[in-house]
Amino acid sequence: MTLAPSPALLLRDVRPWGAAAVDVLVQGERIAAIGAGLPVPPGAAVEEGGGALLLPGLVEGHTHLDKTLWGLPWYRNEVGTRLIDRIDNERAFRHASGHDAAAQSLALARAFLATGTTRIRTHVDVDTQAGLKHLEGVLRTRDAMAPWQQIQTVAFPQSGLLVRPGTAELLDAALAAGADVLGGLDPCAIDGDPVRSLDVLFGIAAKHGKPLDIHLHEPGAMGAFSLGLILDRTEALGLQGRVAISHGFCLGDLAAAECNALLARMAALGVVLVTSAPPSRSVPPLMACRAAGVTVLGGNDGIRDTWTPYGTPDMLERAMLIGLRYNLRRDDEIDIALDGVTRAAALGCGFADHGLVPGSRADLVLVDAQSVAHAVVARPARRLVVARGAVVAREGVLRPGLPGERAHGTA
Amino acid sequence: MTLAPSPALLLRDVRPWGAAAVDVLVQGERIAAIGAGLPVPPGAAVEEGGGALLLPGLVEGHTHLDKTLWGLPWYRNEVGTRLIDRIDNERAFRHASGHDAAAQSLALARAFLATGTTRIRTHVDVDTQAGLKHLEGVLRTRDAMAPWQQIQTVAFPQSGLLVRPGTAELLDAALAAGADVLGGLDPCAIDGDPVRSLDVLFGIAAKHGKPLDIHLHEPGAMGAFSLGLILDRTEALGLQGRVAISHGFCLGDLAAAECNALLARMAALGVVLVTSAPPSRSVPPLMACRAAGVTVLGGNDGIRDTWTPYGTPDMLERAMLIGLRYNLRRDDEIDIALDGVTRAAALGCGFADHGLVPGSRADLVLVDAQSVAHAVVARPARRLVVARGAVVAREGVLRPGLPGERAHGTA
Repeated sequence: MTLAPSPALLLRDVRPWGAAAVDVLVQGERIAAIGAGLPVPPGAAVEEGGGALLLPGLVEGHTHLDKTLWGLPWYRNEVGTRLIDRIDNERAFRHASGHDAAAQSLALARAFLATGTTRIRTHVDVDTQAGLKHLEGVLRTRDAMAPWQQIQTVAFPQSGLLVRPGTAELLDAALAAGADVLGGLDPCAIDGDPVRSLDVLFGIAAKHGKPLDIHLHEPGAMGAFSLGLILDRTEALGLQGRVAISHGFCLGDLAAAECNALLARMAALGVVLVTSAPPSRSVPPLMACRAAGVTVLGGNDGIRDTWTPYGTPDMLERAMLIGLRYNLRRDDEIDIALDGVTRAAALGCGFADHGLVPGSRADLVLVDAQSVAHAVVARPARRLVVARGAVVAREGVLRPGLPGERAHGTA
Repeated sequence: MTLAPSPALLLRDVRPWGAAAVDVLVQGERIAAIGAGLPVPPGAAVEEGGGALLLPGLVEGHTHLDKTLWGLPWYRNEVGTRLIDRIDNERAFRHASGHDAAAQSLALARAFLATGTTRIRTHVDVDTQAGLKHLEGVLRTRDAMAPWQQIQTVAFPQSGLLVRPGTAELLDAALAAGADVLGGLDPCAIDGDPVRSLDVLFGIAAKHGKPLDIHLHEPGAMGAFSLGLILDRTEALGLQGRVAISHGFCLGDLAAAECNALLARMAALGVVLVTSAPPSRSVPPLMACRAAGVTVLGGNDGIRDTWTPYGTPDMLERAMLIGLRYNLRRDDEIDIALDGVTRAAALGCGFADHGLVPGSRADLVLVDAQSVAHAVVARPARRLVVARGAVVAREGVLRPGLPGERAHGTA
């Protein structure tokens, strides 16, 4: 590898999470020391931070790398507005267009890395039309990027599980093929048979000993009902700390008492919530979730795909959108928005050794910003990105030598 | 003026609002001709568009240039969450800090111009503590920028009208001093006496023959009640086409029948709606407003001030946020989001000669984007900005020679 970590790297005069300026010593792929006036080890590279803000590697908790059209000619969206319209349109489009999930996921993963996103959980469509094709493509990207960026793949039944016979077997095969997490989707609204749908799903997860991340778009009482069934199975199967609920719109619809009862159960079972904080939907009540002890993390959801033209591979922008959705204006509140795409996201997805302490994986992001809140609202180009100890990007531009250089990759 | 329009300017190979490529001839401050293969007039400057997207000058329909802390050291927000907390905090902060509304409004107006925003409606605080000080500052900016950017000032009783005796007299003086529009604020929730508050307000507007733009944050039934009182007075005083409602959150709270009845009255009276499309609040139903014939336009509201750290002086980003708030995903829907910060905003604020037809004021924005929707979601740096016929910015950077060059002005 041409981009192996140098023997040592000293970041001088940087402000971790906005604190007083210090130096950060990186050795191999880890933070070795943090302090004022650290000596330069022999042979170490030195980067002058100039008082820039230092953030830990950004974490994308929920995206769909396989779906993106990033860098391709503009896709004119004329799709109907129902969930099922978007599902069916996408499956047909990708089949007809010969969509290349390997190339597309790599283009977007590179763009994420350039903005300092060093860990990604991505849901990958598994269905009876494409089989494991998209997963195989994303696994290639995962392996290619592994020296710098950790990508978790979720085998995701986007077109439904029971409703498309053969999908359960494909999910089983997907986990056997290396998918890290089992995905799920609306057991009432899409699958039409919540008990059997969840029994099948949890059965596959148990067989492989893999965690779960379930898309739950179902609103109000229906969503709360499905969520209860999920929590029942989490408890019965001893899957504490192994289940994530993505979206969970229903939690934003419920009366406080009902919502809080569900949150208490989620906290007790270590079930986490993943949100893109969509401005046009109900969202889980962030502060109530945190007060209940439920970890809430953020993600973009799809970026520039047939579902939506919006989204950028920049977790500072997602933090800003989380801040706007939850009306977080005070500096201490905006810290929480950024927490959702750093610490909380690493915790919720199980990305190990995330942080800004000695021993953490050296995933570091330097930003010209006066404060954490400033970084979130202004989203400046990243001055420097270090991934697993190696400098991978400067001023928003990736260094040569990373995978996929010849791929299209501009916005 | 060093930046006077050249005798003629030919933009070659540009795609107006995403249509087929044409040339655009500018003479003086107006578009003279649009067509394929236009000849180059003697002495004309030529700009090669290279097939870039051409948009009309962007329009900011609701901001607060006087409040911004743009370019100043980071303001740490520790303010309480009630509306009155923010009002009182700001008034006290600006008094204590000696806030310079002239310099601040100019810094932000410049940043707006660099992104192609050639028309701005700005609300300017008038209160018994600051008097007309902020207005005088913004009027200086208005006059300085007038050769390139049209700024409308709204004399705005941010701290209340009746509730702070002496404010009515100050509003009267503000209009006499050159404010273009009379502003108002929550006649129930802030002023506590809606009938008398609106009678006083409309009396001042009528005396000066000036239009009105009223901040209406009041939710649900209270907001609907105040809105009804506003419409009554609009009708009684013959102010058709002269009244704007900013925010109008209540319209997002009402049942469809009640909302539609108000929208029908608004349409009949030519009352327009101005929205920042906040993700955390109810918003007027965009499509229902348009179906009823109510013009809806967009604005940032405050940018980087003591109320909120969010916001950028880029109307493409505001169009994106409008699109996200209203879940506008199809290309034809995203056109509507951009319409809110171009055509509809010019119409609603009364900015004349806006558009991309011969005779329009030559306010032109070139963007490297494949389509209108692409420009909205990607918000690329503006390749070229022409304002009243003069090239004022390239690649997002203003040309030398514009007012306020020595002012702080970065984000």
